[in-house]
Amino acid sequence: MATSPWTAAPAQSASPRRRGAALERAILDAALEQLSTVGWNGLTMEGVAAGAQTGKAAIYRRWPSKEDLVVDALQAGLPLIEEVPDLGSVREDLLALCRQAREGMFSRPGFALRAVIHECDPMQAERFHEVIFEGVVEPTLRLLREVITRGIGRGEVRSDAANSYVFDAIPAIMMYRSKMRACEWSDRDLEEMIDGLMLPLLRPSGT
Amino acid sequence: MATSPWTAAPAQSASPRRRGAALERAILDAALEQLSTVGWNGLTMEGVAAGAQTGKAAIYRRWPSKEDLVVDALQAGLPLIEEVPDLGSVREDLLALCRQAREGMFSRPGFALRAVIHECDPMQAERFHEVIFEGVVEPTLRLLREVITRGIGRGEVRSDAANSYVFDAIPAIMMYRSKMRACEWSDRDLEEMIDGLMLPLLRPSGT
Repeated sequence: MATSPWTAAPAQSASPRRRGAALERAILDAALEQLSTVGWNGLTMEGVAAGAQTGKAAIYRRWPSKEDLVVDALQAGLPLIEEVPDLGSVREDLLALCRQAREGMFSRPGFALRAVIHECDPMQAERFHEVIFEGVVEPTLRLLREVITRGIGRGEVRSDAANSYVFDAIPAIMMYRSKMRACEWSDRDLEEMIDGLMLPLLRPSGT
Repeated sequence: MATSPWTAAPAQSASPRRRGAALERAILDAALEQLSTVGWNGLTMEGVAAGAQTGKAAIYRRWPSKEDLVVDALQAGLPLIEEVPDLGSVREDLLALCRQAREGMFSRPGFALRAVIHECDPMQAERFHEVIFEGVVEPTLRLLREVITRGIGRGEVRSDAANSYVFDAIPAIMMYRSKMRACEWSDRDLEEMIDGLMLPLLRPSGT
């Protein structure tokens, strides 16, 4: 029987031993899988190695710590924030943006990201905050700002609507309800939030 | 040297061995302390026993599992939600309510509660959800509803403002900013949220 992890590939395994970039992708992928299922606390280098069908040494050579591995796994796997086309009204633009946010939240990288956000406090996880802010928060804020600016241009949105509390409302409530009420954010839930909270908040006085 | 936890009180300890209700309070207190410092994942029965200066058996006799212990610790320690007196305007009423929420959030039971919320997912922690909803969420919603109803009565708030997304806005954003930006919710932060988000959201059209 093999005694070293380097010869640990069982005889019956059909997967070839991966090397180089393919191995790294497999390791990052396994890390995301662990994060999205057992969270930051449940993730172990052993578990990641098993998921990538490799040995711990292969991981530690490239990523000296769990934090280093998770930063790269998040960076590699982050959901892509696409542009929101001009759909003609702030209601439709916001709905499109929220549907995108929902797809992101409920994707595997989205679950991985939320595990890290929930389980790590800001001081302890400063390294993650950079990848979270640059990868997700800032692009989302940019899109929200764009949608709101278009709405101001159309006269649908009050000119002083662009403040940071307004921008935080959508991500805050989506994360809150997902966490506290296991809300899965159906299209109907998104519409109720837009109609019940965002449109009243954004419309000019006198409308 | 003592071999049993029951004779483990060191000779130099000034604390008397506690029993009965006093011991239970000490155990619940130690559980809250653990939750608020190392969180759900960091809490161990050994750590709680040490904090209560007792042995694990004393804990297990009363609380067969970590979940049982945490449910009772939260229930015993939950921050008290006081009534919000009528301060004459929805702005002042909301500020008073938010200051109370902030004191709760940043109290030891508040940190304990947030650790449980963040680290446990809804399916896994159904038992906590009951104590969280009955102890904190529902009283807070009741107070918000009261404040908004008073505001409608004064003509400051639009008559259709009482919907669940409006009620969720404040707790959602307070938790979001505390988590994502390590926001400590100064009085000024609270005022900016009320003025920038809640008042525009609540006021009748035409004002």
